[in-house]
Amino acid sequence: MAAPALINGTTRVAQKALLRGLRVTRRLIRRTGKTPGSAPGTLVHTGERRVEKTRLHLIRYGADRIEERDVASPAECLPANDHDTVTWLDVTGLHETDLLAQVGRLAGMHPLLLEDVMSTGQRPKQEEYEQHHYLVLRMLQFDADRNEISEEQISVVVGTNYVISFQESAGDVWDPVRERIRTARGSIRQRGPDYLAYALLDAVVDGYFAIVEAIGDQIEVLEAEVIQEPERATITRIYQIKGEMLIARKAVWPLRDLFNTLIRDESRLFTDSTKIFLRDAYDHAVQVIDSVETMRDLSASLVDLYLSSVSNRMNEVMKMLTLIATLFIPLTFIVGVYGMNFQFMPELHWRWGYPAIWAVIVGLSTALLLYFRKRRWL
Amino acid sequence: MAAPALINGTTRVAQKALLRGLRVTRRLIRRTGKTPGSAPGTLVHTGERRVEKTRLHLIRYGADRIEERDVASPAECLPANDHDTVTWLDVTGLHETDLLAQVGRLAGMHPLLLEDVMSTGQRPKQEEYEQHHYLVLRMLQFDADRNEISEEQISVVVGTNYVISFQESAGDVWDPVRERIRTARGSIRQRGPDYLAYALLDAVVDGYFAIVEAIGDQIEVLEAEVIQEPERATITRIYQIKGEMLIARKAVWPLRDLFNTLIRDESRLFTDSTKIFLRDAYDHAVQVIDSVETMRDLSASLVDLYLSSVSNRMNEVMKMLTLIATLFIPLTFIVGVYGMNFQFMPELHWRWGYPAIWAVIVGLSTALLLYFRKRRWL
Amino acid sequence: MAAPALINGTTRVAQKALLRGLRVTRRLIRRTGKTPGSAPGTLVHTGERRVEKTRLHLIRYGADRIEERDVASPAECLPANDHDTVTWLDVTGLHETDLLAQVGRLAGMHPLLLEDVMSTGQRPKQEEYEQHHYLVLRMLQFDADRNEISEEQISVVVGTNYVISFQESAGDVWDPVRERIRTARGSIRQRGPDYLAYALLDAVVDGYFAIVEAIGDQIEVLEAEVIQEPERATITRIYQIKGEMLIARKAVWPLRDLFNTLIRDESRLFTDSTKIFLRDAYDHAVQVIDSVETMRDLSASLVDLYLSSVSNRMNEVMKMLTLIATLFIPLTFIVGVYGMNFQFMPELHWRWGYPAIWAVIVGLSTALLLYFRKRRWL
Amino acid sequence: MAAPALINGTTRVAQKALLRGLRVTRRLIRRTGKTPGSAPGTLVHTGERRVEKTRLHLIRYGADRIEERDVASPAECLPANDHDTVTWLDVTGLHETDLLAQVGRLAGMHPLLLEDVMSTGQRPKQEEYEQHHYLVLRMLQFDADRNEISEEQISVVVGTNYVISFQESAGDVWDPVRERIRTARGSIRQRGPDYLAYALLDAVVDGYFAIVEAIGDQIEVLEAEVIQEPERATITRIYQIKGEMLIARKAVWPLRDLFNTLIRDESRLFTDSTKIFLRDAYDHAVQVIDSVETMRDLSASLVDLYLSSVSNRMNEVMKMLTLIATLFIPLTFIVGVYGMNFQFMPELHWRWGYPAIWAVIVGLSTALLLYFRKRRWL
Amino acid sequence: MAAPALINGTTRVAQKALLRGLRVTRRLIRRTGKTPGSAPGTLVHTGERRVEKTRLHLIRYGADRIEERDVASPAECLPANDHDTVTWLDVTGLHETDLLAQVGRLAGMHPLLLEDVMSTGQRPKQEEYEQHHYLVLRMLQFDADRNEISEEQISVVVGTNYVISFQESAGDVWDPVRERIRTARGSIRQRGPDYLAYALLDAVVDGYFAIVEAIGDQIEVLEAEVIQEPERATITRIYQIKGEMLIARKAVWPLRDLFNTLIRDESRLFTDSTKIFLRDAYDHAVQVIDSVETMRDLSASLVDLYLSSVSNRMNEVMKMLTLIATLFIPLTFIVGVYGMNFQFMPELHWRWGYPAIWAVIVGLSTALLLYFRKRRWL
Repeated sequence: MAAPALINGTTRVAQKALLRGLRVTRRLIRRTGKTPGSAPGTLVHTGERRVEKTRLHLIRYGADRIEERDVASPAECLPANDHDTVTWLDVTGLHETDLLAQVGRLAGMHPLLLEDVMSTGQRPKQEEYEQHHYLVLRMLQFDADRNEISEEQISVVVGTNYVISFQESAGDVWDPVRERIRTARGSIRQRGPDYLAYALLDAVVDGYFAIVEAIGDQIEVLEAEVIQEPERATITRIYQIKGEMLIARKAVWPLRDLFNTLIRDESRLFTDSTKIFLRDAYDHAVQVIDSVETMRDLSASLVDLYLSSVSNRMNEVMKMLTLIATLFIPLTFIVGVYGMNFQFMPELHWRWGYPAIWAVIVGLSTALLLYFRKRRWL
Repeated sequence: MAAPALINGTTRVAQKALLRGLRVTRRLIRRTGKTPGSAPGTLVHTGERRVEKTRLHLIRYGADRIEERDVASPAECLPANDHDTVTWLDVTGLHETDLLAQVGRLAGMHPLLLEDVMSTGQRPKQEEYEQHHYLVLRMLQFDADRNEISEEQISVVVGTNYVISFQESAGDVWDPVRERIRTARGSIRQRGPDYLAYALLDAVVDGYFAIVEAIGDQIEVLEAEVIQEPERATITRIYQIKGEMLIARKAVWPLRDLFNTLIRDESRLFTDSTKIFLRDAYDHAVQVIDSVETMRDLSASLVDLYLSSVSNRMNEVMKMLTLIATLFIPLTFIVGVYGMNFQFMPELHWRWGYPAIWAVIVGLSTALLLYFRKRRWL
Repeated sequence: MAAPALINGTTRVAQKALLRGLRVTRRLIRRTGKTPGSAPGTLVHTGERRVEKTRLHLIRYGADRIEERDVASPAECLPANDHDTVTWLDVTGLHETDLLAQVGRLAGMHPLLLEDVMSTGQRPKQEEYEQHHYLVLRMLQFDADRNEISEEQISVVVGTNYVISFQESAGDVWDPVRERIRTARGSIRQRGPDYLAYALLDAVVDGYFAIVEAIGDQIEVLEAEVIQEPERATITRIYQIKGEMLIARKAVWPLRDLFNTLIRDESRLFTDSTKIFLRDAYDHAVQVIDSVETMRDLSASLVDLYLSSVSNRMNEVMKMLTLIATLFIPLTFIVGVYGMNFQFMPELHWRWGYPAIWAVIVGLSTALLLYFRKRRWL
Repeated sequence: MAAPALINGTTRVAQKALLRGLRVTRRLIRRTGKTPGSAPGTLVHTGERRVEKTRLHLIRYGADRIEERDVASPAECLPANDHDTVTWLDVTGLHETDLLAQVGRLAGMHPLLLEDVMSTGQRPKQEEYEQHHYLVLRMLQFDADRNEISEEQISVVVGTNYVISFQESAGDVWDPVRERIRTARGSIRQRGPDYLAYALLDAVVDGYFAIVEAIGDQIEVLEAEVIQEPERATITRIYQIKGEMLIARKAVWPLRDLFNTLIRDESRLFTDSTKIFLRDAYDHAVQVIDSVETMRDLSASLVDLYLSSVSNRMNEVMKMLTLIATLFIPLTFIVGVYGMNFQFMPELHWRWGYPAIWAVIVGLSTALLLYFRKRRWL
Repeated sequence: MAAPALINGTTRVAQKALLRGLRVTRRLIRRTGKTPGSAPGTLVHTGERRVEKTRLHLIRYGADRIEERDVASPAECLPANDHDTVTWLDVTGLHETDLLAQVGRLAGMHPLLLEDVMSTGQRPKQEEYEQHHYLVLRMLQFDADRNEISEEQISVVVGTNYVISFQESAGDVWDPVRERIRTARGSIRQRGPDYLAYALLDAVVDGYFAIVEAIGDQIEVLEAEVIQEPERATITRIYQIKGEMLIARKAVWPLRDLFNTLIRDESRLFTDSTKIFLRDAYDHAVQVIDSVETMRDLSASLVDLYLSSVSNRMNEVMKMLTLIATLFIPLTFIVGVYGMNFQFMPELHWRWGYPAIWAVIVGLSTALLLYFRKRRWL
């Protein structure tokens, strides 16, 4: 779509809102880079390249030891032979197809799984494969500069003694988890890869609360605008915030199913003690979903509020016009009468004709003003 | 969000409504105080501190005895060794993390359970643990001064011979239950901790009816306003009442599930005779949900009513303007004609020219007024 | 809520609609008379007292005999010892707490059941107790004077050889059933208490069709009003009819569940041959639900119709104003030009100046009128 | 409801639409002729009598023979003794209670079944009885003269070797089926009564496609009207078409359940080979439901389109008014200035005063017109 | 429906939109060419004939060989005797009834299956027959010239060693699949007919993403239009895009069920290893459904945006009018006063009368302009 060449007749604020508005739809409709009909398992990275070089970061830990370093090739650490430790390989950057294919081969991943990891328009889901569990989520972050949500696809593959995570760009959402592993805070060092997977998921879900608060703040600002001084750009911004909520919604709604399946299904990989924690993460996800739905309701009401605000404003303008017109049009008629040039107009020659006309004018105006006051127009 | 510095052009009522409106969104979007990615089970109190000091109140009762006192430390009463009595420990105030951790440790609570007790943005739910049942509800009270609903999180932990309840501030909603225990009214003294838990839940649910009535009263006032004299602030107040209903809705909707699970599931802790009472509480919850949904329907219709009221008002104003303009603009034209200064205008010199013009003016006005009456504009 | 002291600026019709409108909300939000936290099973009659004195009416019948009389005390007829006959005790008036408690005790009713019988805000439901089945419905009648639906709570307790029915006021909806028992019409005398219960339920459900027709009639009247001559009060009446439909909806929606459970569940009390009849009553209930939903759809469309009707009306008014203004304002300008007093205005001295101006005026008007006709404004 | 005596102020088209509109509601709300509380199984024909005399038409066929004739009494052909042939008794006209009771008695029908056959407001359903299956559907036909859907209730009772069908009036929808039996086209002569029942149902469902097309045509006409030249009557016709769709919807929605139950349930009467055909009929029903839902969506959008069309029209009118007023009101002021009679007004005596004023007038008009063009109002 | 003969008063863009709009409804309501009541299994091709002659294209392949050619008659290749190879017969063009009947007979297809293949208004579905699985989908393609979606019905019959596909016109959506077979890319040559069927389905589903993107582009253009310069045609185009989305929706919604059933059901024909691929296709279908729903939400908001845009525009026009009128009408009155011809008007003879009037005029205008600025109208 060609960008509109000329945006005339709107304020600069509206123009900025417009450009952002366009971005919402663009971000909502995910583009696939795949050729239709191409063989399944074809590895194509569909998102934008966000990091210079794919980085492989390894943390291998057990109850009493920890090893952490960047690795050059997945062969250095996969397959994870040691069953007493948990191996976490974190892959940042998804554009190096060969490297990812190598990771997939070493970990025995199904080609379709690897395809999903790389095509970044996945709906959150979980899939069980013979040797591992595949979890895909969408991490959301609020970009305060652009005033919009940025999305990133997060994949987590859980095996018997390893976790491989994939993300598009280096983020700090998992830093607290790394810190907990390093400092052995909480029980994470005593637990298996399923608990690590939970911890990663939980960190992503925790991040949604910040999104909810950011959108909530925007809605508060819009409420204030609508009630005080609604402008043309206000409704555009409501439209945009609705778009942001749709993005949030697409990220969080499927989580209900995802966690429910993880908790209910019998699975070799997720132990009962971890499932209690997954239930907690599920509760958080439901809280986020609740909040998003509530905000949808609020923003729908906000449109009503805006429309009635515009109508009320128009009403005021019309009242003003009607007042002036109703007051002066009859008076103009009266003075018009005595501007006529008839030869025989007795009033014109009366001594008190002119003062009498003023008396009529003042009397009529007063009567009209009293009438308006009675009708509550003044 | 910075509060808008200047609220110009609106009445004081609208401004007050505005400030309240902002509070609705703020209250609907629950803020977590937790750092994303922090270890699960981290105890952080997320609400505002509402009482000076946490108070531990103990009631221990059996069929024929009762003991009631404040305790300084939970160790004085937990674990409850005596299986013939029911021990009810009521904890008021959730900000003293250490004290609550001590309660949790003595009662053998899971760290996640205690985390939920303290982070006050929980969705109502029930969870079964090995040694106890955890129930969390939201108590609502109508604050007549602020004209808004205030929320409080209520947690109830039911064990084999004890009930531990947690609330954010001292309230009187459970006073009737205490009174029933003290006076041995009803069968409460003969029954176990599951019945006590039911009684606590039932008291909270009973409180919802007052909320429903308060919102219903507000809607009635708004109906009267919309029908009589809708102002700009009216729609803002409808918006606010919709927000209050969203708060009520978030508190009551999950109760359907909560009670359903309690009643249907096999549980060591809840006996069949108590389940009959839980079914009664479930019915009450469903009645409240029904009423909230009905009021949502009503308030949606109220917006239609308001908008059509504004339109009708505009119609009246326009009719007024059109009447005046249609009546006087042609007349002004006519008198304008005879205000022209042409040298040769025979009418000006006619003897009856001026009276004839008046006849034309009166005739035309009468015809227009009759036409307006026929079109029902008068 | 204080009733609004002054209703100015509205017509009398609108005021009456207002007062009725307020009643809708009041009737929709059921008030409980119970103190929150009071012991379950506390007997409080929550409705208004509708009859002077509670009346106990007994009909005892078998295939070949019938006995019918008013009884002073339930002890005269309960418990029903004879297993060859069916005992129907009809209790009219729910305010005499002691009498009802006595009925409950004799029939072995659970305290919660009796509480539900007396608190008249129940949602329709069925509950199975050890010795009997409890059914509660809402009887609706259309009050033609007030132009509104009046509600009454109907409880039916079915035992092995008896039926106890409770109603708030004496009504004639069950008279046909009594008549069928007296005259042994149909098979009612050959059948058990379950069939009697069905007959009572069926009579209540049959009554809903009259409500549906009454609301349907109102909607037809409103349709005619909206299409012909929409007034301000019309939308208020649409609002009110929507409220009436909400009342009907709350009474009929739960019936689907109620009958479904009765038909599907295994129950000692309801025999298979009666279940065929219950299936018929279920069909009727679903027909009523269908009709209520259809009318909701219609009334929603009616609001659209009203709003567009108001807009169209405004359009007509505006066209009128624009026509007049567009026609006369330019003409007034032209005559104004020749009303100027410049010393040197050659036209004023032309011989045919004045007729020429008239020619211009007539020509311009004709051109404008032709233009309006082309734009379809005339 | 009395028809409104005077419909003034609306065009004839709107009046006709009005009268039709009223009929929609009337047709949607089915009236029962039954007295509330009357014994179940009471036979009352609730529809209008559409044929003079009930006609009993018999077709008895096997693989190699066929017999077809009108019979005077059901006793001539019922019960159908011969198990090698299929007996199809088609009853047209439902008002002769005694005759239908006789049919019912001979075929061993349950009184409730017969009551349903005669009370013509049934929701489509299927019911299994001991000796036969009862199917009730609503046949729809588009009445091109009245421009509305006409409904008829169709009942089909399927036994082991017979089918009894009931319809309100003689229609030709089943003629192709008769023709197939007569000419032994397809496999119908080789198959049992279950296949005949399927063929009858399928013919009814096929008829719905014509309804869908007729409504679709109406919507197309309305689309064209709304886009080109929306009139007041247009919205009334949209309202009416929505009513017609509600009628269609009530007829087709329950079919999904009906066919699903027939296909899934184990039934002695419907063989597996017939079920494949029922699945086909089910697919057709779902296609119709899909189309009706799609048209509902379209007609909802049509209302938006209409409202914005009306708004746009108003905008155009207002622009016209504003243009004229903004152009001429200032000019009229200017010429008014020089119409004043002050003794000392130097401009009046200037030689070029009058031409100068014209210059001002032309200059100002041009400037305003350019401004309007820039604002895109011209 | 006769096409409207005269479309006056609308721009050419609106007219084009109109004609397209009409096509939407026409395309949404599928016409059946079947006579109601005709025997099931009657073969009638209901779509338009899109190719000159039906083409039968055969590909027979195994792991190590491939044979590809056009065949003149299905007898040349059906039934497929060789169980080591997969026979894919692709039939393009559905109007040659006899040829298709021959295909059906050779492959042992049920008459109803063949009827469904030829009547091109099927809802996507899958049906299991004894010897094969029948899958029907709707292929969508975006026709950039007409700016609309074109639909085509795709049928796939899967047997133990063959796949027969039917399409209405020659398309290139399956060319990549053919290419993969020819070049033995991927594992398609090693796998059975079930995998081939999956590949065909997957290619169709992949094509939906292009549709989603095309509609998304349209919505972006409309957003830009609504925000900048909404015209009358804009809302018509929103209406049309909604229609296109309904078409897309009807094609994709049933896929959820279709794939779910294929994946869950036990089926001889679909192996577990193929089911993993079907799960992938299911995920893609759900992504498309998600996107379509999101776009529906967006387009609903777009209508709000458009309506408020129109209202805002009207507000601006009204403000302009009111400004001009409020400014000049009082001034015109004032100058009218001194245009009166009274004999005794002292002001007229004052030396500074005329300048004083100018002072009044300038003062009043300034005051009004300041007032307008304060009310933020300027």
